[in-house]
Amino acid sequence: MSSDLISEIRAQSKLAISQAISLIENQWVDGNKLLSKLYKYTGYAYRIGITGPPGAGKSCITDNLIKAFRKKDKTVAVIAIDPTSPFSGGAVLGDRIRMTMHHSDPNVFVRSMATRGGQGGLAMRAEEVGEIFDAAHFDIVIYETVGVGQIELDIIQAADSVIVILVPESGDEVQMLKAGLMEIGDLFAINKADRPGANKLMITLKNLLSTLTFDENNWQPEVFQTIATEGKGTDVLLKNLLSHQNFNQSKGIQMRKFQDRYHRCVNSLINSNIQKIFWNEEKTCLLQSELQKGQQKQMSPYSLVSKLLEL
Amino acid sequence: MSSDLISEIRAQSKLAISQAISLIENQWVDGNKLLSKLYKYTGYAYRIGITGPPGAGKSCITDNLIKAFRKKDKTVAVIAIDPTSPFSGGAVLGDRIRMTMHHSDPNVFVRSMATRGGQGGLAMRAEEVGEIFDAAHFDIVIYETVGVGQIELDIIQAADSVIVILVPESGDEVQMLKAGLMEIGDLFAINKADRPGANKLMITLKNLLSTLTFDENNWQPEVFQTIATEGKGTDVLLKNLLSHQNFNQSKGIQMRKFQDRYHRCVNSLINSNIQKIFWNEEKTCLLQSELQKGQQKQMSPYSLVSKLLEL
Repeated sequence: MSSDLISEIRAQSKLAISQAISLIENQWVDGNKLLSKLYKYTGYAYRIGITGPPGAGKSCITDNLIKAFRKKDKTVAVIAIDPTSPFSGGAVLGDRIRMTMHHSDPNVFVRSMATRGGQGGLAMRAEEVGEIFDAAHFDIVIYETVGVGQIELDIIQAADSVIVILVPESGDEVQMLKAGLMEIGDLFAINKADRPGANKLMITLKNLLSTLTFDENNWQPEVFQTIATEGKGTDVLLKNLLSHQNFNQSKGIQMRKFQDRYHRCVNSLINSNIQKIFWNEEKTCLLQSELQKGQQKQMSPYSLVSKLLEL
Repeated sequence: MSSDLISEIRAQSKLAISQAISLIENQWVDGNKLLSKLYKYTGYAYRIGITGPPGAGKSCITDNLIKAFRKKDKTVAVIAIDPTSPFSGGAVLGDRIRMTMHHSDPNVFVRSMATRGGQGGLAMRAEEVGEIFDAAHFDIVIYETVGVGQIELDIIQAADSVIVILVPESGDEVQMLKAGLMEIGDLFAINKADRPGANKLMITLKNLLSTLTFDENNWQPEVFQTIATEGKGTDVLLKNLLSHQNFNQSKGIQMRKFQDRYHRCVNSLINSNIQKIFWNEEKTCLLQSELQKGQQKQMSPYSLVSKLLEL
């Protein structure tokens, strides 16, 4: 770990940042060493999560946000969480076809991460990549992710503000609840609002949200319409984002979110470490020999666990 | 833990099975004791996973499968994994409105589990509930789950056969890949096949699958059409399920899936145990006091972890 890498990350070198992300994705020990050294430079970026069903226009809205933040001279990093293609082994929509228009802007960085494969710690690793961008002076870190799986929700909930993108076709109440989107959104953008059903969805959403009680210490989610392909609604989106950010800061929610991230980071590191310590050669061998005996001769997993814990 | 509970579970008492599931969901230690005692009775049920996007008709196909299996005099348990409603705190589509027609059949048991809340171990707990049904002589255990989040995928991949339900509208290739459905399906049912686009989707799917190479030891996924509301295609679905089951058995895949479940169970139990052992009062206090210092005075999470591991 050269101190050069640190200073190059701090200077927003795209190459250095890419190297740092590779470390985090592939080399656990070195990645942690790097994060440990970068820690004192973090705590400044604002983290935005963008989610919604496939085809809702998340990339397009992200794109509009990037443009709007750039106009305000903010630097923007995007971490796009894509399901891995079973065919290529890589992310389905990689950096290549994503937001290519910002490619030449040194103050915009777009990075894809894949949800499959190294499943376990993905949410954690995405947060760590966010830390890299934070240390690299990016003002805004956007997590963009399709769908509403647990990993995606974990990632999104690490954000300071969560934007849920819906389309008029998402209208069915039960389906929306099933998709688990209602409880995680701070802002709800009804995109493609020129299509039939946009107003109906707006009413449905507001009704659903009104069944929740919000007091002065809880943010009342905002619902609004956008037509992202035409850039319409981006101003409202930005205004609401800013309100939410101010609300979070004034109510101490921003601080709580920071503490949650800190807590998760400690838990994750401890879990990985104690698992490594536990599974020494003797215990690994015992498990393997038990697995090789076959179903008929194996002891129950519960008996095996007792034996392993006694060792 | 009374031996009565065990014998009542073995006698398929719905009350006893419900009690057992509650134990698993709410009382970790007693739940494990029960599973440990039931272990010797397990290993017989065939586990089927059913997944697909919201509105694809999973419940309806599950319903058709239940009817078909009942005709063959097989007992069927359904574990439906639903996202939790943020409003009720319970599962969105509970047992109440699900497959109510089988309510009076003592050989069909439908149970909902919620994906939110106690997130961490849900996939594990769903497998454990499957073990209860297995010990209770259910021939077929069906895991039915909306969406394609990681937890859902974990649950589904614990199944012996995975059925992915699609509809003609799911046709867009990129969206299907994004949804991560391609790599987990053993059988692909194109439901609502009387709608336009069913044949096109069938061709798209077959093309996508043909880019994978299957040798004689790898199952070539089947693609077929259904109209679940009219019961059409259930015979083909059953036939394909049986082929897949036979294939799994003849190629040793069934055994491998069993060993994977065993391995996961051991890992999960070990992880829970070593975390409990690690977080003693001293360490918990250290973490808490660090959290209370606030962002400015806190040591980095990496330094804290080193200190915790030294204790």
